[in-house]
Amino acid sequence: MDEPLRIGVAGLGTVGASVVRLVGDHASALAARCGRPLVVTAVSARDRTRDRGVDMSAVQWFDDPVALARSRDVDVVVELIGGEDGIAKAVVEAAFAAGKPVVTANKALLARHGAALAAAAEAAGVGLLFEASVAGGIPVVKTLREALAGNEISRVSGILNGTCNYILSRMELEGLTFDACLKDAQRLGYAEADPTFDVGGFDTAHKLAVLTSLAFGTEIDADAIHVEGISTIEPLDLKMADELGFRIKLLGVAERTATGIEQRVHPTMVDKASSIAQVMGVKNAVSIAGDAVGELTLVGPGAGGDATASSVLSDLADLARGNRVAPFGRPVASLAKAERAPMQRHEGGYYVRLAVLDRPGAAASIATRMAERSISLESILQRHPPDRPWDPSGRSAGPVPVVLMTYATTESAIRDALDAVMADGHIAEPPQLIRIERP
Amino acid sequence: MDEPLRIGVAGLGTVGASVVRLVGDHASALAARCGRPLVVTAVSARDRTRDRGVDMSAVQWFDDPVALARSRDVDVVVELIGGEDGIAKAVVEAAFAAGKPVVTANKALLARHGAALAAAAEAAGVGLLFEASVAGGIPVVKTLREALAGNEISRVSGILNGTCNYILSRMELEGLTFDACLKDAQRLGYAEADPTFDVGGFDTAHKLAVLTSLAFGTEIDADAIHVEGISTIEPLDLKMADELGFRIKLLGVAERTATGIEQRVHPTMVDKASSIAQVMGVKNAVSIAGDAVGELTLVGPGAGGDATASSVLSDLADLARGNRVAPFGRPVASLAKAERAPMQRHEGGYYVRLAVLDRPGAAASIATRMAERSISLESILQRHPPDRPWDPSGRSAGPVPVVLMTYATTESAIRDALDAVMADGHIAEPPQLIRIERP
Repeated sequence: MDEPLRIGVAGLGTVGASVVRLVGDHASALAARCGRPLVVTAVSARDRTRDRGVDMSAVQWFDDPVALARSRDVDVVVELIGGEDGIAKAVVEAAFAAGKPVVTANKALLARHGAALAAAAEAAGVGLLFEASVAGGIPVVKTLREALAGNEISRVSGILNGTCNYILSRMELEGLTFDACLKDAQRLGYAEADPTFDVGGFDTAHKLAVLTSLAFGTEIDADAIHVEGISTIEPLDLKMADELGFRIKLLGVAERTATGIEQRVHPTMVDKASSIAQVMGVKNAVSIAGDAVGELTLVGPGAGGDATASSVLSDLADLARGNRVAPFGRPVASLAKAERAPMQRHEGGYYVRLAVLDRPGAAASIATRMAERSISLESILQRHPPDRPWDPSGRSAGPVPVVLMTYATTESAIRDALDAVMADGHIAEPPQLIRIERP
Repeated sequence: MDEPLRIGVAGLGTVGASVVRLVGDHASALAARCGRPLVVTAVSARDRTRDRGVDMSAVQWFDDPVALARSRDVDVVVELIGGEDGIAKAVVEAAFAAGKPVVTANKALLARHGAALAAAAEAAGVGLLFEASVAGGIPVVKTLREALAGNEISRVSGILNGTCNYILSRMELEGLTFDACLKDAQRLGYAEADPTFDVGGFDTAHKLAVLTSLAFGTEIDADAIHVEGISTIEPLDLKMADELGFRIKLLGVAERTATGIEQRVHPTMVDKASSIAQVMGVKNAVSIAGDAVGELTLVGPGAGGDATASSVLSDLADLARGNRVAPFGRPVASLAKAERAPMQRHEGGYYVRLAVLDRPGAAASIATRMAERSISLESILQRHPPDRPWDPSGRSAGPVPVVLMTYATTESAIRDALDAVMADGHIAEPPQLIRIERP
């Protein structure tokens, strides 16, 4: 049996504490699987006194995580501090400077500095592993980087943020508003006090940036992502989706198109019978389309201390065995610059909900403006609002929701058409626009 | 860039031809991903003249696949001949004797000789990789062996045979009989002329044996598997399942129980809302429960030339990179003998369909015999057969189906109870018994 792999854990939140515990609890199985023992020798966290439910009396404590990264008693550094700059980045750079591999769960850091850090790892001749950075316990990084090495990937998409999926699931199942579900999510610890990062789609975007690079062999480029969040989704949209055979999910989608690589995060109508539509609550899911494999879908826990630690341990086991793969699946020099497909040229179907004031005039306006841009309508849904008394003229009662589902068109065409409909003056509020994703 | 990895492919069926084609088509991407080129230098198949849709003019042909395994122009042998003995085994042994790693899709060979072959690979200091042997393009071997290295696995289960899933899906959606669907599956090439291996559950059992060893670190033991096929399932069972909120799937299940490791293959009632219930047609799915990760489900193509070749290429890429993992995740000497949990001690709920002759007497008999063994009934369903005229006495019209769903009990208790009900003489045919699986 070889020398133990000595692990330093920087950051002892729920994931860090789980890593320390699991390495201890599964010591003999890990040693059998890796051919050598794995031992946590050093940790770093702000508060030494907090009870983390695991015995750390034999572990060396560092107040300064950069000092931990440099310690002679540490072979591999696990960075669980978080944040796209500052101390997390300093820890990773210190590890590479000392010739040590890094395991990280930090998608923000990767989304911002992934290419530079991969180059630094390569220059140092060490690994940079980040299974835990995307979709918690789901092994999507390993799947893209290793299992699908013989595929040309055309598309990767997924539910990558458990907070948003929890909120949308509850809105759908219980008919609640976004605000009510967000409050519940905060109370249950599924959402932060400032929820913008999650519900605004930015967390999903960071993870998508990592997946895009792995899938297409391109330099990570988070700025190229079109990002929309879920705060504008209303219970009525979920109800209409249900009637039309859809569910609404916040998806991150990266796909190769004729105009380049399209990366987008937005609420999406997905067919109720699809695998992805079954993913409810805080779970995550990722679907990958490859030319050889066809479609592969992975479903599992997107967050949580133990599930995320499971991914950290996957990376540590690979390091312990001496197995090596380039961070983004190929040498940094052979990562292409991604050609960015402009969102205006996105093609697909659209769900449009309009608050219509004057129905006869509005219907003519909608039909004309759509036809002018060759947009075909798959369905039109209009209901008399259940909370409003019946008015035989259909005119005086204020705006009425009208829902359209279009066949495939372009983002610019639908936006132009809706601008023209608005200008015609029959619509009371800005339209709700949700993209439809068909498998 | 290092020397090319020279690949010899023994067996050129649909998978073999796909491997040769994909290695050629994706040559530059594979070289970038692996740090060296991958080249097919030799092939072996009975018929040299058949058009396989791929140019093999530059490749050396061997009539004898054992000679291919020994060739000095081959670094790694891909065994795609199939069969649990004979030539496939000879090829693998010749490769190990020549100090070469083996990639195989041969679950029958692994189920029968897996432990011995892993020991031979270990002795030769080379790899034995078999991602393609289970669930086609789904990377479940890599997931169990590497991604979940930090987990104690409690359960692995799945839809592992596309033929059976196709038949059950069509029976359910179209109300057809098993025989009718089997004929269609044969016509479409989804089932063999002799379908016993698929529909009898034996193919699923071979794959389950591989997964069990990977999940629990035990020596492969296909003989320990309780196997039932799907030929006894009737359209009425699928209809009743639907009414009760279930679907019927042929599952392979391996789980750690108080009495040892239970391995079983049988038609199973699964909750309609579960991920596994959404898997229709020829797709496969595997769910894995681990102490850290919770539950992970992988869904994808379970067969097909390209999808299975995708898994072969995953193994080849690992070999090209020089990455090494023990075949069953740990050294052969540390694989435990699996303690076999007797099927009689299996615990779970049961669906029972009885052909009842005399209802008043039968109801008393059923209730009494179940109660005597402390079996509680969750639901009882009885319908007047739609094709039979109404008879107010309820007696003279011949057997009527009665369906029971039990709460958790043991296999021996339910079988004893049904024997006793049969002995009471109110039941016209042997009972239908389908296990219920709850997540």
